[in-house]
Amino acid sequence: MFLKPSKGQLKFWSGLNQPKKRQKEGFFIAEGIKVVQEILRSGKRAEYFLVREDKEEKLAGLLAAVKGSRLYLLSPGEWKHITQDKEAEGIAALMPRISVSLPAPCGFDDLRCLLLYQIGNPANLGAIFRTAHWFGITSIFISENSVDAAHPKAIRASMGSVFHLRIWENLSFPEILSILKERFVLIATTNRKGQKPHPLHEPSVVILGSESHGLPEEILSMARENWCIPHFGDAESLSLPQAAAIILYEWTQNR
Amino acid sequence: MFLKPSKGQLKFWSGLNQPKKRQKEGFFIAEGIKVVQEILRSGKRAEYFLVREDKEEKLAGLLAAVKGSRLYLLSPGEWKHITQDKEAEGIAALMPRISVSLPAPCGFDDLRCLLLYQIGNPANLGAIFRTAHWFGITSIFISENSVDAAHPKAIRASMGSVFHLRIWENLSFPEILSILKERFVLIATTNRKGQKPHPLHEPSVVILGSESHGLPEEILSMARENWCIPHFGDAESLSLPQAAAIILYEWTQNR
Repeated sequence: MFLKPSKGQLKFWSGLNQPKKRQKEGFFIAEGIKVVQEILRSGKRAEYFLVREDKEEKLAGLLAAVKGSRLYLLSPGEWKHITQDKEAEGIAALMPRISVSLPAPCGFDDLRCLLLYQIGNPANLGAIFRTAHWFGITSIFISENSVDAAHPKAIRASMGSVFHLRIWENLSFPEILSILKERFVLIATTNRKGQKPHPLHEPSVVILGSESHGLPEEILSMARENWCIPHFGDAESLSLPQAAAIILYEWTQNR
Repeated sequence: MFLKPSKGQLKFWSGLNQPKKRQKEGFFIAEGIKVVQEILRSGKRAEYFLVREDKEEKLAGLLAAVKGSRLYLLSPGEWKHITQDKEAEGIAALMPRISVSLPAPCGFDDLRCLLLYQIGNPANLGAIFRTAHWFGITSIFISENSVDAAHPKAIRASMGSVFHLRIWENLSFPEILSILKERFVLIATTNRKGQKPHPLHEPSVVILGSESHGLPEEILSMARENWCIPHFGDAESLSLPQAAAIILYEWTQNR
């Protein structure tokens, strides 16, 4: 059973493209077939779904799986105001805020977790979510001054993996560091000088910085180890998601 | 000394957004500050440069480095027709065709090279270029039915690394395989079942398929080894650039 959206709803949904509105309202839109599939697979509950009317037939299988939820049918013109995708797949979910608040469960029972420092690029953030999920790392702490985890490009790049993670956002970095170091070995990462990434069997947290700025000196010197990926060509940089993939792979080997 | 573009030139440049035109004309546009810096660092020669007039002052340093080249000054309105970027940096180079033809030097003196099979996503292709450059792998063979290496999104994602590589494109896959297997150990990659990636000191070529389709069975069975990245979480897939980064890292270790 499809519902017709009101003008107020359309305005509300398109407003969620802005980080401030997502923050204020406590909701965000998660768009795409794969993304919606992962929401269902994760057991997370969508408030309701949005469907582009000309895609309804193509989406029949997926729509059968969300039977019982509220479904809003939008025209292509209405869809254009809420979508971020060039080639819209015509399905999206309205989801409640993705991150949990400290002190909450806090991932302290995990063997490994990730701490992300001032990541500004949402596609990089989402790509790290996807890789973390692959390697079984499910607790992600994100500092202040990062892009929000519910940014449409982060959700997209994560391919829905974000719904399988526990995410804490907007953390004061000194505060979360002082909490984490009580229980975890701190590993900082750098593109300058350090050890190769390697397996660790103690509870440990790997700290990643942004592609352009990396981590500040005081974090590097506070960590027990600094990890660096050796460089063989004359290239100037490795992308953050690729560096993260290598680090997560090495860290989780032989377990 | 800046030149004003003619209408015909503007049309020519905007036409290069189409793969067919790039193919036919033998030129493409490489856009962005970092990309232009890498062209200069690589020693490759641009035909000329395009500059957005309101960015000229900001680009003074880079423009000083290309002194002596032809420079065209475009208005923001003219720029909009050639750019692919949401936030244009205001500089681009017109570059001659990026790939070389077989049989040509052929990378046969390399210890390691990459063979890419039907990669359709230009951002993935560019990300692989960047990682290959980082790990000192400079010969890249690309099959037919792949996106072209001069696609603006591939150039962008490569961050200019593409100008440090030797690239062969549009190769008949059976033909290039039969040439390469004379000299190289063939390593296929899969997300199903195989060995972990590891260092190889013999001349070897790693074959990567697309994220959605991977490699066909006959390639897997023809290769001496199949490599697969172990999977710890309940995630359904690892992204191609991240998988490639792990494979290239492992393959080039301890040399």
